[in-house]
Amino acid sequence: MGRLETALGHQFGNADLLRQALTHRSHSSPHNERLEFLGDAVLNCVVASLLYRRFGDLREGDLSRQRANLVRQEALAQVAQGLSLGDHLRLGEGELKSGGFRRPSILADALEAIIGAIFLDAGFDAARSVIERLLSSLLEQLDPSDSGKDPKTALQEFLQAQRQPLPQYALLTTRGEAHAQEFEIECAIASLGVRALGIGSSRRAAEQAAAREALRLLSGK
Amino acid sequence: MGRLETALGHQFGNADLLRQALTHRSHSSPHNERLEFLGDAVLNCVVASLLYRRFGDLREGDLSRQRANLVRQEALAQVAQGLSLGDHLRLGEGELKSGGFRRPSILADALEAIIGAIFLDAGFDAARSVIERLLSSLLEQLDPSDSGKDPKTALQEFLQAQRQPLPQYALLTTRGEAHAQEFEIECAIASLGVRALGIGSSRRAAEQAAAREALRLLSGK
Repeated sequence: MGRLETALGHQFGNADLLRQALTHRSHSSPHNERLEFLGDAVLNCVVASLLYRRFGDLREGDLSRQRANLVRQEALAQVAQGLSLGDHLRLGEGELKSGGFRRPSILADALEAIIGAIFLDAGFDAARSVIERLLSSLLEQLDPSDSGKDPKTALQEFLQAQRQPLPQYALLTTRGEAHAQEFEIECAIASLGVRALGIGSSRRAAEQAAAREALRLLSGK
Repeated sequence: MGRLETALGHQFGNADLLRQALTHRSHSSPHNERLEFLGDAVLNCVVASLLYRRFGDLREGDLSRQRANLVRQEALAQVAQGLSLGDHLRLGEGELKSGGFRRPSILADALEAIIGAIFLDAGFDAARSVIERLLSSLLEQLDPSDSGKDPKTALQEFLQAQRQPLPQYALLTTRGEAHAQEFEIECAIASLGVRALGIGSSRRAAEQAAAREALRLLSGK
């Protein structure tokens, strides 16, 4: 766990907290669900304050959307992968066999639990420092002018503004076992001759990826 | 504003923050919407940590429900009334005439904005102290055994367990002007001969109040 603490930039005074944060309920008790509840709240609060300070002009609704983008499961799972969190998770046998250590929901939940553990271990400011560091590259990529809208919403609004029909989403394939599936979705805008593909760990994530690709294709036209 | 600061138990270093927190968007800019976004996140985080420490046995879902109960609009508006917040609000003329200073949504939003202002003025721990004091009597009333379920859900589960039909809710009257309405709802369980009334500032709040009263009548039988 020393490597993980170095990656997080936080040395735990109480190592039991970190161990609990890494323990999935399929493994043993005490597991990380309560810490996840706490960490989710700390994360939302820290991100709210970072966005508040950074975007002095954004209104409440836009701040909410930016935050939802930053703390969504896919983003957190990516951060968790950057920390190699999967190598440290304590999973039950079933989860282990089905590849739970790379499932986005398990990774994102464990990251939130770690944030909760740091908050209990050393307080709000310690948690804030870690969150700021972990999210720094995501924070830098934020574009206040896109209002933080998710790609499906942005695509729909783009098409409505051009009086085009709404895009059609279709599931092309699913891969992998029940608990670690990958979805491939097509987003088609027939009237504009656009077909875009997206892959994700949920149907919703794949649709968002497809919409993002469609927007990219449309903005290149 | 000195009286309000005394009631809050926080003296502002930057009084502009408090003034902004008390300014409704109908009055002038800068108003309190962004502070409300921030304060809502701080409040959720502080309440999460209070519940986490206090209820060591509750699972994530129950902690979430307890929190939702504590930070719901009606509860916050009640706390705001205890602070006589309505006397300090800066409202536009229309809101003033329609009684905005006692509308639950405006009071609850202003309270959240004040929490955001304290967080900016003096940090997380200062905001936590104020929140702990303001919510102390609500916190004491919490009953972990009721799982924090809202009354409508609790009533429905109670009736299902007894194989009774679901309750019927009916709107009896509305009072007041468009923006400051009061709703009166009847909750009827014909099979058990129960009729309970509830009043609230929204249809939903009145239904919850009626369900709470119905539960009270049923538990007395």
